[in-house]
Amino acid sequence: MKLTVDLERQSYDVIIKRGALKRANLLTNLTGKVLLLHDSGIPDAYVKTIKKQCGKPVLFQLPQGEACKSIDCWREICSCMLSEGFNQFDTVVGLGGGAVCDTAGFAAATYKQGIGYCLFPTSSVAQMDAAVGGETALNADGIKNALGIIHQPDIVVIDPDLLKTLTPRQMASGLALALKTGLLCSRELYDILESLPANYNNEDIERIIYLSLLNKKGLLERERSGSNEQILLNFGCLIGHGIETACGLGNLPYGECIALGMLPMIETRSLLRRTRAIMRRLGLPVSCRCNKETVLNAAMNDRSYHNSHFTTARVKHLGQGYVEAITYEEMRLLYIGDDNN
Amino acid sequence: MKLTVDLERQSYDVIIKRGALKRANLLTNLTGKVLLLHDSGIPDAYVKTIKKQCGKPVLFQLPQGEACKSIDCWREICSCMLSEGFNQFDTVVGLGGGAVCDTAGFAAATYKQGIGYCLFPTSSVAQMDAAVGGETALNADGIKNALGIIHQPDIVVIDPDLLKTLTPRQMASGLALALKTGLLCSRELYDILESLPANYNNEDIERIIYLSLLNKKGLLERERSGSNEQILLNFGCLIGHGIETACGLGNLPYGECIALGMLPMIETRSLLRRTRAIMRRLGLPVSCRCNKETVLNAAMNDRSYHNSHFTTARVKHLGQGYVEAITYEEMRLLYIGDDNN
Repeated sequence: MKLTVDLERQSYDVIIKRGALKRANLLTNLTGKVLLLHDSGIPDAYVKTIKKQCGKPVLFQLPQGEACKSIDCWREICSCMLSEGFNQFDTVVGLGGGAVCDTAGFAAATYKQGIGYCLFPTSSVAQMDAAVGGETALNADGIKNALGIIHQPDIVVIDPDLLKTLTPRQMASGLALALKTGLLCSRELYDILESLPANYNNEDIERIIYLSLLNKKGLLERERSGSNEQILLNFGCLIGHGIETACGLGNLPYGECIALGMLPMIETRSLLRRTRAIMRRLGLPVSCRCNKETVLNAAMNDRSYHNSHFTTARVKHLGQGYVEAITYEEMRLLYIGDDNN
Repeated sequence: MKLTVDLERQSYDVIIKRGALKRANLLTNLTGKVLLLHDSGIPDAYVKTIKKQCGKPVLFQLPQGEACKSIDCWREICSCMLSEGFNQFDTVVGLGGGAVCDTAGFAAATYKQGIGYCLFPTSSVAQMDAAVGGETALNADGIKNALGIIHQPDIVVIDPDLLKTLTPRQMASGLALALKTGLLCSRELYDILESLPANYNNEDIERIIYLSLLNKKGLLERERSGSNEQILLNFGCLIGHGIETACGLGNLPYGECIALGMLPMIETRSLLRRTRAIMRRLGLPVSCRCNKETVLNAAMNDRSYHNSHFTTARVKHLGQGYVEAITYEEMRLLYIGDDNN
């Protein structure tokens, strides 16, 4: 399956195909210099599979998870590219989870006014959400995504076979992101997640990846034409990133944080009940112990916080997310003020 | 005088007006949080003038010249913005020479997916060239502009009165950039520089600033629509940045390096002779002692160097720069192979 994210001069393809990792060089040009950034946590076989398809690979291993999104890692990546003489026509490849995708994108965006990059996401979160959209990021001073630039990739290659090694909890983290997209803009995707059998198969997951990215692509394209869709994509992130920060970056799976962050932003009791039931069935938590004041303080680091207001996404009716400015006090009431979460 | 750089959603105004610094808040909104990045080398009075027009100023002093374009400085700037709670609607102001403009732009581009910034250039190089174009940059591993992103400012405010404190050599550095623009695309500007009296006055300088930026704006707008103009803007930079690096970043005025870098790229003897004469009259060097092999090696760090080719700008006829790919050997011959430089 192929999706084309249509962003004028920054358009790119998203390929979703089992076995795609083995045919990467048929999908994109890997004959030049390639900086292969890979996650220390992924199987060696994945790295070897990409490496042998590259003309001039330079391997660079990153620490697993959020640890790679540091200024120091980025500095080392850039030094490596400089010493290897990377220039405008060379490529960065990110092979790993969402954090590796974020880091690879940031390095590509900032190196000599921007060079191209390709993403080969290996986690459920990255395949179902994070690898598409061009949001690159680093963390700084303990603040999630404190630094970042929008820089679209040249191609995103998704091989759902890579998810086979993941634990059920790791899979659930990605499904939480699909649930977010369903709530925001796809009743069809939401319904699939609601009726997903416990013993879901490859076809189910491929369908979920496809629908998640198809709908995310729609949001990105509409945002391009001037609407507020990028803020829609922030659904669940205000409280979610706050929870992630309050629990220590990387200690709680990303999808769990976002799922927890969505709940206070759902406005009808019935939809909230249904969503909680889906989360339980998918193995996602519906509450978490963390200092709620710390969460709210961390949320204030979001770029949308201004003049005591958050600009954020909410959902009243399934599949119809919308953007609203709410005061700090309203946010506080939504999150702490009742027992919704 | 006002120029509008027309880059669709990234369009912005360039104001050229004596005394503009004192009226900055009438030209742009400074009521929110403003990070005022300023150069340690400029008069205190400039900083105070801007500060008192800001609603919530946060002052941040940068080391003078290329020293501020370091990853460490950038990290400190971002930490400062994070601790002060800067968000999407807050602003970075760069007050200083080209290096401060580059750093301010890079910080604004990378902070939380990009925030706005305003430039108040104080050097002749920044007023005549560097502050317009959205080229932001940091140096790394001793390589000039190794990191960078295109991120257009919200406004550029040019107060030619600020040039009054500069030495003749500092002024000449900016005039070298105007000469570059003249050679590339403006016979009128070139002619003005050729006949510029030694005791030039304010009106002469304002006219040169205006014509330089008017012509640069044209190049930027045409580049936007898909032509090679950005590479045209690289005229003189390949060898020029090489000379700057070979002599030690910041040891030779930037405009002198670029002027020296243009000479090998001028193809006709007569134009070369005329240009050298102008350079001498403006007080610019027409040769420099540095290791030419080091210069060429440094030039290979340019993002355009690929597969043993440089993509670069050359000038055969006055005002008609063009882009050409030349081999490393051809470049070597142009620079070292004869006594043109």
